[in-house]
Amino acid sequence: MPCTIARTLEVVGEWWSLLIVRDAFLGVTRFDDWQRRLGIARNVLASRLDHLVEDGIFERRLYQDNPPRHEYLLTDKGRDLAPVLRALRTWGDRHAPTPDGPTTVLVHDACGHVCESQAICSHCGEPLGRDTHVVPGPGCADPSFVGEGRPAERAPADAGAAAPGR
Amino acid sequence: MPCTIARTLEVVGEWWSLLIVRDAFLGVTRFDDWQRRLGIARNVLASRLDHLVEDGIFERRLYQDNPPRHEYLLTDKGRDLAPVLRALRTWGDRHAPTPDGPTTVLVHDACGHVCESQAICSHCGEPLGRDTHVVPGPGCADPSFVGEGRPAERAPADAGAAAPGR
Repeated sequence: MPCTIARTLEVVGEWWSLLIVRDAFLGVTRFDDWQRRLGIARNVLASRLDHLVEDGIFERRLYQDNPPRHEYLLTDKGRDLAPVLRALRTWGDRHAPTPDGPTTVLVHDACGHVCESQAICSHCGEPLGRDTHVVPGPGCADPSFVGEGRPAERAPADAGAAAPGR
Repeated sequence: MPCTIARTLEVVGEWWSLLIVRDAFLGVTRFDDWQRRLGIARNVLASRLDHLVEDGIFERRLYQDNPPRHEYLLTDKGRDLAPVLRALRTWGDRHAPTPDGPTTVLVHDACGHVCESQAICSHCGEPLGRDTHVVPGPGCADPSFVGEGRPAERAPADAGAAAPGR
């Protein structure tokens, strides 16, 4: 698919894959630990880990010879998924909260404080809220794919006019 | 699951769901448009849209009476997924790029410039890279779930010592 969101989802767009990666961010490296934590079928877990190794998210390393046992370590490509997990966490803390508050909170190593990840505009440095839209980029073969580049408004007035057969 | 990442994935952790939401962020509101853009089976699309309405991501609205036709508009809860999509895009632009560059680029409405979303620490204001970890939060019933709170290191020296049967 000609879209990097779709291409990302091809790699991690499966429920279990992102939970496996989440656990790796907590320090989990071994098959049996994931299996116990996630309650996932062993064949499903093995298949997801194989895919994640093929896609370069994990590196598989032998940690015991006899019998042979492997551990799975996040690569740099895998660690770069941290902002995806932080974004999922932020949304979930707000819209799908656990009854007694967040299970985990984020700490910034450099300053040592509990924090949240805040998005700012790389150009002007102001906070990025919902006030962004997208326009066709250099790799866009079909600008009609991008359409309006922003969500349709929900104001009643536009009910008849929105998205004319695009 | 007692984790807001898992709870978020319960809502949107399905390949098609996030692509449906992505298209809504481009202005798509109608069944046939999604069907044509995504090439998704009609029954799968109908089922995913139903779930997304149930979960409060979309609001379903009648736009034509005879025959009855509905459109699907992102709610505030749905629009709050923008940072999730931005994070997926950023990772994909870097690690799963399209050959001719990004299909779309982000524009900040307030300043009018093409930009990227940059993450900063809400406490100290410095950029957030990989230098974060997590600690148990108020809703954490079992601190062992959080473990080390950071990924295992890949230095060869820790091969024997990492993650001792947690």
